Amino acid sequence: MDFTIDLSNTGITADELKEQKEDTASIMEALWSGKMDLSGWVKLPLYFDQRKMRAILETAEEIKKKCDTLVVIGIGGSYLGAKAVIDAIGGAGQLKHDGIEVLFAGTNLSPAYHLELMQKLEGKDICLCVVSKSGTTAETEAVYHIFKKIMTEKYDTSFRDRIYFITGTGEGGLREEAKTEGYKLFTMPDDIGGRYSVLSEAGLLPMAVAGVNIKDLHRGAEIMATDMGWDDVLQDYGINRYLLKEKGKAVETFLTYEPSMHGFTEWLRQLFAESEGKAGQGILPMALDMTGDLHSMGQFLQDGAPVFFETVIDIEENPFDIMVPGGKYDGVGLAALNRAAAKGALDAHKEAGVPLVHISVPVMNEYVLGQLIYYFETSCVITARLMGVDPFDQPGVERYKSEMKKFV
Amino acid sequence: MDFTIDLSNTGITADELKEQKEDTASIMEALWSGKMDLSGWVKLPLYFDQRKMRAILETAEEIKKKCDTLVVIGIGGSYLGAKAVIDAIGGAGQLKHDGIEVLFAGTNLSPAYHLELMQKLEGKDICLCVVSKSGTTAETEAVYHIFKKIMTEKYDTSFRDRIYFITGTGEGGLREEAKTEGYKLFTMPDDIGGRYSVLSEAGLLPMAVAGVNIKDLHRGAEIMATDMGWDDVLQDYGINRYLLKEKGKAVETFLTYEPSMHGFTEWLRQLFAESEGKAGQGILPMALDMTGDLHSMGQFLQDGAPVFFETVIDIEENPFDIMVPGGKYDGVGLAALNRAAAKGALDAHKEAGVPLVHISVPVMNEYVLGQLIYYFETSCVITARLMGVDPFDQPGVERYKSEMKKFV
Repeated sequence: MDFTIDLSNTGITADELKEQKEDTASIMEALWSGKMDLSGWVKLPLYFDQRKMRAILETAEEIKKKCDTLVVIGIGGSYLGAKAVIDAIGGAGQLKHDGIEVLFAGTNLSPAYHLELMQKLEGKDICLCVVSKSGTTAETEAVYHIFKKIMTEKYDTSFRDRIYFITGTGEGGLREEAKTEGYKLFTMPDDIGGRYSVLSEAGLLPMAVAGVNIKDLHRGAEIMATDMGWDDVLQDYGINRYLLKEKGKAVETFLTYEPSMHGFTEWLRQLFAESEGKAGQGILPMALDMTGDLHSMGQFLQDGAPVFFETVIDIEENPFDIMVPGGKYDGVGLAALNRAAAKGALDAHKEAGVPLVHISVPVMNEYVLGQLIYYFETSCVITARLMGVDPFDQPGVERYKSEMKKFV
Repeated sequence: MDFTIDLSNTGITADELKEQKEDTASIMEALWSGKMDLSGWVKLPLYFDQRKMRAILETAEEIKKKCDTLVVIGIGGSYLGAKAVIDAIGGAGQLKHDGIEVLFAGTNLSPAYHLELMQKLEGKDICLCVVSKSGTTAETEAVYHIFKKIMTEKYDTSFRDRIYFITGTGEGGLREEAKTEGYKLFTMPDDIGGRYSVLSEAGLLPMAVAGVNIKDLHRGAEIMATDMGWDDVLQDYGINRYLLKEKGKAVETFLTYEPSMHGFTEWLRQLFAESEGKAGQGILPMALDMTGDLHSMGQFLQDGAPVFFETVIDIEENPFDIMVPGGKYDGVGLAALNRAAAKGALDAHKEAGVPLVHISVPVMNEYVLGQLIYYFETSCVITARLMGVDPFDQPGVERYKSEMKKFV
């Protein structure tokens, strides 16, 4: 395992943890037995179809040859995983040089956002990748048609060779469109839900195009799958979360010190909020971007209502640095200042009695990120099941969509 | 007043509100008496020194003539207000055409972030604006020296004509640097704290450079200052917030449907978190970007732990639109779809029993934004004082800085 997790400052005792171990063991057993619906992601990194892996890599090569920019159209679980990994690996200076730019559309319904994106795409040679598990997402459906028109105007009938679809098996909607137009189509497995699909084709194809080493990402997840099966200390984060919630901590704040990690905390927000937030349950997840947020949320973290606990994801070694060439910090690197701020905040919050989870990553790369992804997914299942809710359904998200239909 | 606020779905009764009216009246009186330390922002839009306004506008013209990009170096209250206004007005299509690009540095300590920014600045003609109330902020100090070096390399001895400073009156630190180098220097009033400084020179100069009509912004704040003095319905948002907190709502989620409003919700987070989060008090503020976050946090908002209330800031008329040219939404505009999603979510959350505050802005412009800024600032003071805390201090933010010193 290439990261460490320090749970010694959560305020939860060994005895309290021990009381949950029996339940946790049966959760892990149920998860691995394949008896839970939509838990296909559990074995994904262990038994990933190598023909599929090859097809993804070949398609990524094909896309990189055809264009200089890939526009991914998707929302929620259909883009958060890919964006998280591409940004984190890019920010760690680990993207392969033959990767091309990957931009995201359909992540909201703002005309201003999409007009700005179109401006950015002027003069670019583009391909599209449309991702929707259901094949019926409103944002994806609407924005796909806007971009389809752009593609036909730009590439005439050859536009079809530049559009790639990734959908679930459900017929109709966008899947039917892909078949009618004859686009290259990837099919997501039925037994993996959107927010757990980052290591399936939905995440892997855009990542590979951007220059992420997706095999290493899978290898990282694989080693974690093996470790978490038997190491019950690894399961303690999930138990700690449950117990902190029981003790009145309503919010988990995820703190990172690199803007390139923001996408990862956005992915974490969906994973946890959608898996746990049902039947009046769940810990409300919040992403904080340091050091900026130390200057806005820092006062609250230090002295405010004690309704939260902190999970800090620290990257120890940064491949980039800029030396400060004068003044008070003359000769000090920004990276060292950033580390000092992180350590200072951790100590100050510890002293203030904030329950702290500290995850330390010596160096960020695909292998570690694969481990982290799998680790958080499994931890989330543990907490959700201890709360008594199903980590794999989302009965509430359809509600606003049916209300929305009244207005359009 | 050019926006409406609907407080009828918070679950707070008229009688409950009435009980707080006496306290609220004395808070408003104290605020207007000038007896509270650091409450100078209250009268700022009413009695703003017009010579200062002219100096800001003239300096903005000077900067726009000298360069094509202004880099603002500041963190927390020294940039959140300017960014909020520039993005919101830009997203509403209201920026004057002679404005130039304004970018932000020193908003964190990430080397990767600043290297990317430097790449973006290659080939640009730049000026700097360094903002720090204390004059000793670590991020601003470090990043200023990095950019000073860039400026000397690029412009030789004439770099001094391209650097502008805005600091408080406290001598030493960055203020001393400005005096030593002979930069043009603006001085922030002593009686306005960083997070309430958006309508002072700290916010106004960068905004004017970007093409914001800062006089209209001030006029909007002025009308709100007048209205809030006598209209106690306007004060009810602040009271509602306090009572919702008392009823166990630990979190306020600010929902917007335009990415250009994200900066405004970031500004709100600092305003509320830093003003209220002390002595174990405060409502934890959270910014949600719709519709994206409906696909990640939507499940929790609908069915999760009832630990939050929602404040929705809706903009009804959008100057931009893109027609969907096919499929299920053929002939419908993205703007209409976005509005339908907002209405659908509002109804669905209402049905789920989430306490709702609904702020509706018919059209976004400087005048309305000035009103909103002043409205939120005053509401924040009401809630903080009802909680029994000082809305203008921040005793906790120094803690991590002193811990940080051990490591650098």
